[in-house]
Amino acid sequence: MAAKFLPATTLRLTPFSTLRFSSFFHISKPLFRPLRRPFFEGFPANARRRCFCTAVSESTGSGEGKKVDNSYENRFGSKVGEFRRKLKIAEVKGGADQGLGRVGQSLSIMGWVRTLRSQSSVTFIEINDGSCLSNLQCVMNPDAEGYHQVESGSVLTGASISVQGTIVASQGTKQKVELKVDKIIVVGKCDSSYPIQKKRVSREFLRTKAHLRPRTNTFGAVARVRNALAYATHKFFQESGFVWVASPIITASDCEGAGEQFCVTTLIPSSHETTDSSIDAFQNKGRVGRLVSDFMVVLYSLTSQDFFGKPALDSLWATQWRNLCHRLSDVYTFGPTFRAENSNTSRHLAEFWMIEPELAFADLNDDMACATAYLQYVVKYVLDNCKEDMEFFDTWIDKGIIHRLSEVVEKEFLQLGYTDAIELLLKANKKFEFPVHNRGGFRGRPVIIRDYPKEIKAFYMRENDDGKTVAAMDMLVPRIGELIGGSQREERLEVLEARLDELKLDKESYWWYLDLRYGSVPHAGFGLGFERLVQFATGIDNIRDVIPFPRSPGSADF
Amino acid sequence: MAAKFLPATTLRLTPFSTLRFSSFFHISKPLFRPLRRPFFEGFPANARRRCFCTAVSESTGSGEGKKVDNSYENRFGSKVGEFRRKLKIAEVKGGADQGLGRVGQSLSIMGWVRTLRSQSSVTFIEINDGSCLSNLQCVMNPDAEGYHQVESGSVLTGASISVQGTIVASQGTKQKVELKVDKIIVVGKCDSSYPIQKKRVSREFLRTKAHLRPRTNTFGAVARVRNALAYATHKFFQESGFVWVASPIITASDCEGAGEQFCVTTLIPSSHETTDSSIDAFQNKGRVGRLVSDFMVVLYSLTSQDFFGKPALDSLWATQWRNLCHRLSDVYTFGPTFRAENSNTSRHLAEFWMIEPELAFADLNDDMACATAYLQYVVKYVLDNCKEDMEFFDTWIDKGIIHRLSEVVEKEFLQLGYTDAIELLLKANKKFEFPVHNRGGFRGRPVIIRDYPKEIKAFYMRENDDGKTVAAMDMLVPRIGELIGGSQREERLEVLEARLDELKLDKESYWWYLDLRYGSVPHAGFGLGFERLVQFATGIDNIRDVIPFPRSPGSADF
Repeated sequence: MAAKFLPATTLRLTPFSTLRFSSFFHISKPLFRPLRRPFFEGFPANARRRCFCTAVSESTGSGEGKKVDNSYENRFGSKVGEFRRKLKIAEVKGGADQGLGRVGQSLSIMGWVRTLRSQSSVTFIEINDGSCLSNLQCVMNPDAEGYHQVESGSVLTGASISVQGTIVASQGTKQKVELKVDKIIVVGKCDSSYPIQKKRVSREFLRTKAHLRPRTNTFGAVARVRNALAYATHKFFQESGFVWVASPIITASDCEGAGEQFCVTTLIPSSHETTDSSIDAFQNKGRVGRLVSDFMVVLYSLTSQDFFGKPALDSLWATQWRNLCHRLSDVYTFGPTFRAENSNTSRHLAEFWMIEPELAFADLNDDMACATAYLQYVVKYVLDNCKEDMEFFDTWIDKGIIHRLSEVVEKEFLQLGYTDAIELLLKANKKFEFPVHNRGGFRGRPVIIRDYPKEIKAFYMRENDDGKTVAAMDMLVPRIGELIGGSQREERLEVLEARLDELKLDKESYWWYLDLRYGSVPHAGFGLGFERLVQFATGIDNIRDVIPFPRSPGSADF
Repeated sequence: MAAKFLPATTLRLTPFSTLRFSSFFHISKPLFRPLRRPFFEGFPANARRRCFCTAVSESTGSGEGKKVDNSYENRFGSKVGEFRRKLKIAEVKGGADQGLGRVGQSLSIMGWVRTLRSQSSVTFIEINDGSCLSNLQCVMNPDAEGYHQVESGSVLTGASISVQGTIVASQGTKQKVELKVDKIIVVGKCDSSYPIQKKRVSREFLRTKAHLRPRTNTFGAVARVRNALAYATHKFFQESGFVWVASPIITASDCEGAGEQFCVTTLIPSSHETTDSSIDAFQNKGRVGRLVSDFMVVLYSLTSQDFFGKPALDSLWATQWRNLCHRLSDVYTFGPTFRAENSNTSRHLAEFWMIEPELAFADLNDDMACATAYLQYVVKYVLDNCKEDMEFFDTWIDKGIIHRLSEVVEKEFLQLGYTDAIELLLKANKKFEFPVHNRGGFRGRPVIIRDYPKEIKAFYMRENDDGKTVAAMDMLVPRIGELIGGSQREERLEVLEARLDELKLDKESYWWYLDLRYGSVPHAGFGLGFERLVQFATGIDNIRDVIPFPRSPGSADF
């Protein structure tokens, strides 16, 4: 675990050395100003703050992008410049040849200093620009332009720099190529008070520094894998002909006269809740909140006393946008959801992102097939596109994760009925709480549990022919437990109305839902908590470490 | 405008005819049940509700997807079936050959009946599956399997059906190919009480039927273009090396003891507000809300007394995630945002989606170049991928929109300074309110106004060398007005602190923002209201018609 939070202090730690600036720096104020408060606890209040950014932007524009004449006289009607994609380190080193094809190329890279080592006649600077885990090694002789900034100690860990030079084959074994620097510009300084130094820091500490933790290796890698999973999600559904729709967060009736204030209420539709489930250990009350109405927030609660203590991720409110699948065939949402349960666990967030596809002309088998294909697609995408980050997780976070994810992509998923699953677990004679979370799925690969007793599921799930179970399913994956929950929806008006009567629910309130039975079709869908997916793909054990700004009770500072 | 809401009543309107069902329909309840309440106003309360869906799902699975043995005995450990992409009408007819390459193919299509015409020996059914605007014409002889359902009047507008047959060249002039039907199955019935009939209905009426309006031509086309714009947004930023990050919606401090309730407050940081702007007509107070804290909603207000009365789309709270660009270089968000201003206009929503990229090592010129490239990319994507829908908008909603959008893609955008823009407008001697909204941008193409007086902009925008203006910009587009607003951010700690002092803002509250000056870099970003973009791309004049479930004061029923 030692190298997990790599940013290192420099080998030439000269925090109070004199600072020199090249001539184009625009400095109109004193460089050193007394710090009026400690900016993190444990740092002495009388310390001097010495982090600044004084570069003029002309030195750091986007690559070779054209500059526009800014003088007011020439500005009227002048053209907007061309957008150039910045050259990133991932592009320089990331190819199959690890950059050898670029040997001899002159280029310019901007990023942040990770380490600096000076030897007698040569200085090595590792810089990182966030595009990949590994750094670009820059080699500099004393005759490089701007070298005085190295001498004066301006090039410390955390400083932002711009380097120009030529790609050459590297003498070292760690990389194929490195940059021979012709010119270095310190863009933004940093000093040894910078909290993200080379020493290992705990993830608990970093949660208190949410604004800085993306600068560590772990959180940088999580952010890239998270990004890849999100993009792969869109790619999968778009390529499968789904239409993305925005599910509304504000979802209830008018709150006239409330002006600019949000009104708030907590709704607990107790008629949804059954408390007589036979296996208490499986019970868990989940409360999923959605913003309701104009300026009104309603938390709704739907009991989710189902198999493995999962929160009720789908609920009535969540269904309202699903009607779009009655016109657009297949739709999906991908957006934030809220959860107000006051539980302080490593598995729950107050705010999380959900993916919810809804398939028209589809039954539970189609639903399970889609969920399986989706998971295999996004996991394969990450294995293919985030190789370096996944190797990092395999080495430092969760040994064997690459093998485990590869099996998910390659092996067929299994399904079994709820009753069979219960029997199996009872035979297994293990502790009941979160059994699958501990056991790691079913023989190491994902398993789908289907056909739950209707008493413990929502009214809109389709009744099976046995009259006792509904066509609901949950996908359980190793280490995470329940990742996906879904069902076929009841499309038969008469069954739906009978079910509402049975649960003593007011049909008046569901008029719009019943209206959808016009030209109704068998339809099904599922929900997936995106942060759980990121945990599954990275091996990170605390859900608060897979979202940039985690929200949980007592923790929403950033 | 006549054909805008096309769904038609059938030519054989037999609403009370006897219904017959094929043998596999599972019917356990009376088909006709008295309706206990009118399900929309104007419909007689004693009318009988006759919409049902009675098909068993086996008849309608996803294309040729394998079916799994569902018997309990065989279920333990059985495999999950393969996911097959459903064949959609857009794929059948959408190619360059308009489907001629498929002549002779046997296939099965599921969708909803738009019209039915019976001639002596042949019946024409137009079906639509939401994948494209146009229908698939199905031709059926009386010897087709299931034809009795046509005779009995079960095949009415709005009903869902599954048809199997062979693609043949069409005799008609409206389409190249049609489906010769061998078998028809009515999946979900519908009758003449269905509110979306052939007659034109107003968009105001349809807003009260948000759950059904996606079934009209207009809203189906809007949904597809909206989807294309969203996907193109992700494609553009991903291809440009940006990382998508989830900006938090819950964004403030703890609210201990509130349990499961959302606490609510309205914050108006009045120190941000200046009321002495010289041109009153340009003033507008925008209030942008974000969910704050654990279970706490804070609406914050930031004056946006800027040029064209736009709301302040970016604000301090919105900036907090931007620090990720200090580690990941370039990032973007795409998520919902809230706005609690009680304005009932066609240009504002209480809940809308925003796109906010943030560029590291970038100045205002890079920012403008990126915004321009982005807009051109997504508009081109829609013109290339939503041809049929765009022709529909050009014909029925906004004549000339394709030409206008093509010019946006092809022509270079112009930029001019704020002062010059004011002079120009004064010379133009036009009415001041929303002048650009009315004038249609600048000579018909987008224009960027830049360098606003610092008094009317947020504290974090970078001060220009003149000491009077900041590096902010707004992009104005024809018919919409302001579409994009952005700025270069102040990266110089001493200037930032001086600005906070000047505005009498408490630096303690901004400690995390000031902390980001560690290794600070010139950075810039912009914000874009996604629904405005959809309006721009479709020509739809009311913003409530470009989001599936519009949220505005007094309107959040669905």
